Formats: sequence, structure tokens, C-alpha cells
Amino acid sequence: MSKAVVLLSGGLDSATTLAMAGAAGFTPYALSFRYGQRHEVELEFAARIAEALGAVEHAIVDIDLGRFGGSALTADIAVPKGRSPEDMEAAIPVTYVPARNTVMLSLALAWAETLGACDIFIGVNALDYSGYPDCRPEFVAAFEYMANLATRAAVEGHRRVRIHAPLISLTKGEIILQGQALGVDYGMTCSCYDPGPGGRPCGECDACRLRAKGFAEAGIPDPLLARFAQMP
Amino acid sequence: MSKAVVLLSGGLDSATTLAMAGAAGFTPYALSFRYGQRHEVELEFAARIAEALGAVEHAIVDIDLGRFGGSALTADIAVPKGRSPEDMEAAIPVTYVPARNTVMLSLALAWAETLGACDIFIGVNALDYSGYPDCRPEFVAAFEYMANLATRAAVEGHRRVRIHAPLISLTKGEIILQGQALGVDYGMTCSCYDPGPGGRPCGECDACRLRAKGFAEAGIPDPLLARFAQMP
Repeated sequence: MSKAVVLLSGGLDSATTLAMAGAAGFTPYALSFRYGQRHEVELEFAARIAEALGAVEHAIVDIDLGRFGGSALTADIAVPKGRSPEDMEAAIPVTYVPARNTVMLSLALAWAETLGACDIFIGVNALDYSGYPDCRPEFVAAFEYMANLATRAAVEGHRRVRIHAPLISLTKGEIILQGQALGVDYGMTCSCYDPGPGGRPCGECDACRLRAKGFAEAGIPDPLLARFAQMP
Repeated sequence: MSKAVVLLSGGLDSATTLAMAGAAGFTPYALSFRYGQRHEVELEFAARIAEALGAVEHAIVDIDLGRFGGSALTADIAVPKGRSPEDMEAAIPVTYVPARNTVMLSLALAWAETLGACDIFIGVNALDYSGYPDCRPEFVAAFEYMANLATRAAVEGHRRVRIHAPLISLTKGEIILQGQALGVDYGMTCSCYDPGPGGRPCGECDACRLRAKGFAEAGIPDPLLARFAQMP
């Protein structure tokens, strides 16, 4: 079995990606980041998901992206609420974290190289997303090309690095249906950008709205909402 | 004056690059990393160089590359000593840190984006180097291409990210002569991979040997050696 590094945020997309990496026959190593995100509670979700979906190891790496500021997810800027899908597509929102996927894929590449792995999985999605530049297929392809010039294995000529983005052309509804078929418990995932205690979703940020749209499309209830509905 | 982010390790190459960025008319923001390197003393050198060469700000960002291991610079692996230039070119050495330049350029890109800067300087060098894959011109070009797909400025179409590698085709001797002309005090730089107290160079690692070769080519004495020769 080949090893693969899987970026795991604790959200719906990356949990599905982790399940897909396992289903494709890879031994998954899950990688999460503490990057100054206001929704740091997602790391607790990530740890439970990694265990439930059979990751061999779960590394949480600190990177101080908050040092640079510039995003509602890391700085003291309000997270936008109540936006429609059309609003989300109109411009890159303030929740965009500068160069986040580039930084995270770079660290995944570093770990992959020390593990002797050539495969990296990332749950980016170009359909139901928030208009982030680093979620598009052309970005993923360019990163893969660069990675094959950056690393020892590539230079020594014996292996190729592959960046897998299995969700890239799926809708949120399709992602949920595929994950459900692979046994992902979405009650263990956390999507909200501005969660309350224990990860209670705000229901109004872009991430919550995209998630709700996905469960509506899939025609199933969101088990996370059911879980919080039972709590006081 | 345009802002530029300059990667600054505290060594000879990055100090020269910082001087070149200033001479080219950029307002420099220096960026260093505490990545678990055994030669962490280089950060003290970096701070003094940043100040001496007029950096507006000097950020030191923590990234735990040592978490992944795999390099003599971050793990408990011996730094090779006494190798000839031919030895250094024969294979990628154990001092190679997996994906280091990719990770550092990614973080420079994140900072550049929040500063509103489009220019990043890196002191990689493809001639007198240690055989690292991520020091080659094709790597730098591929990173630049990827960066222009990864960022808000690029997507919104108004600016292009440029990765400047002004040393890429210079010999160590040429680098030293150009830096000297720009007023770089090489007595403030630290190249050694395995330094003693205060940054005293070991004299035998690849970095010390390449540095000595450079000063010999340039026909000038190394002021760092003069400094340590005066110390007990």
C-alpha cells in the first residue's frame, strides 16, 4: 500500500477526501494546521475524523499565518453572514486566507518527501466554493508541476509527485452522497467559519450556507444539526 | 517605491539579495524562519543584517519542519564534513531540507499578498550550491507560474507576482564582489550548517567550504573569519 498525505481541516470536504484516499488503496497520513484560525475548534473535529477514518498518523503543524493578517479567518475582521450563492461568486471574500492552500500543500509536500510518499490529497472544490483562487484546477495542476521540480524524488528521476483533488468537479451534494457511501459520519465534521462553543455552526456564514445547500441537494438531513438540536 | 518580501536566512547569499532588492528600488520586508534548524544562531545574524541593510520590517515565522525530520539540518543526523565540490555535486546531501524553498516561498507569498506586494526575492544559486533541487531556475519559474494562479491579485487580473532570484547564475565569488560593492558587511553573515557558540563557523561543512571558495575567488579575506580569529 502506498502512503499518501491527506490535508484534513475537519470540514466536510476534507473528511470525504480522506475517505476517498483510503478507498483508493492509499495508507493515509492526515495533516492539519493551527494557523491562527478563529475556528480552531475544527482541529478537535479533525482529530476525531482522522481516527474514525483510519489515518495511520495525524500531524497538527503550527504555522503563524495570523502573523501576516489580511483575512477574516485569522484577523479581527467580521466573517460575512447571510450571503447568497451569487454574492459568494461575485468576488473573493474577506474569509480568503492569503496563499493558504499553497502554504498547506507545501508543508504536505515536505511531509510526503520525508515519508517517501508521492501522493497528496486535497479537498478543494471548484464548483460550490467561495471564489478562492487556490481552489481551481489550474492552480492544482500548476502546484503539481512545481512540486515535481522541487523535490529530491523528482530530481533523482524515479517518482512523480501527484496532487489528487478528487472533489474538484463535484457539487456539494455529490460530495456528501459519495462520502456517505464510503461511511463518512458528517456529524463529526465542522464547516462553520465562526462557530460557537463545541463547534456549534452559526448557520449564516458562507461555509454554513454552502453546507446546507449541499445537504438539501443530497436530499438528506445534516447529522451535525441533529446533534446540536439535541443539545441545550 | 514598491514593497518586496526578501527571504533572509542570515547567510551570505540572502544578505546580498537583500542589498540587491534595495538597490533595485524596492522597499524590503525581510522574512526569516525558525524551522527547527540546528544553526538557529543564524536568526540573530539575520536580525542584525535586516537592520543594517534597511529592511522596513523583519518577520521571523515559526514553522515546525523538524516535526517531519528527514534532514541533517533539522534532525539528529550528522552534518557531512570535508567534502570536495565534486562530492557536493554528486548527489543531494543529507542537509537538504524537504521542500524547504517551496515552504518558504509560499509563506513569502502569503505575506506579500497581505502587504500588497508583488515582488519576492530569494537568494538561491544554481552554480555554487549543494545540489538542492529547489535552487534551480526551472523550480523558481514553476513557482512563479503557480503563484500567479494562487493569489487574489493574479485572479483579479491587475498585477503579476514576480519571484526574483538575482544570484541564480552567479558564482560565489561574483556574489561576494557584487555585495561588497553594495556595502554588505559579510562579517555580519553566518553560513555554517553546524556552528559553534556565537556562530563560529566549523570550516568543514559544505556551506563553509563553498563560502571559503567564494572568498578565494573574489580575492578578498572573509571578515567573519577575521572576527572569530580575534576572539579567544
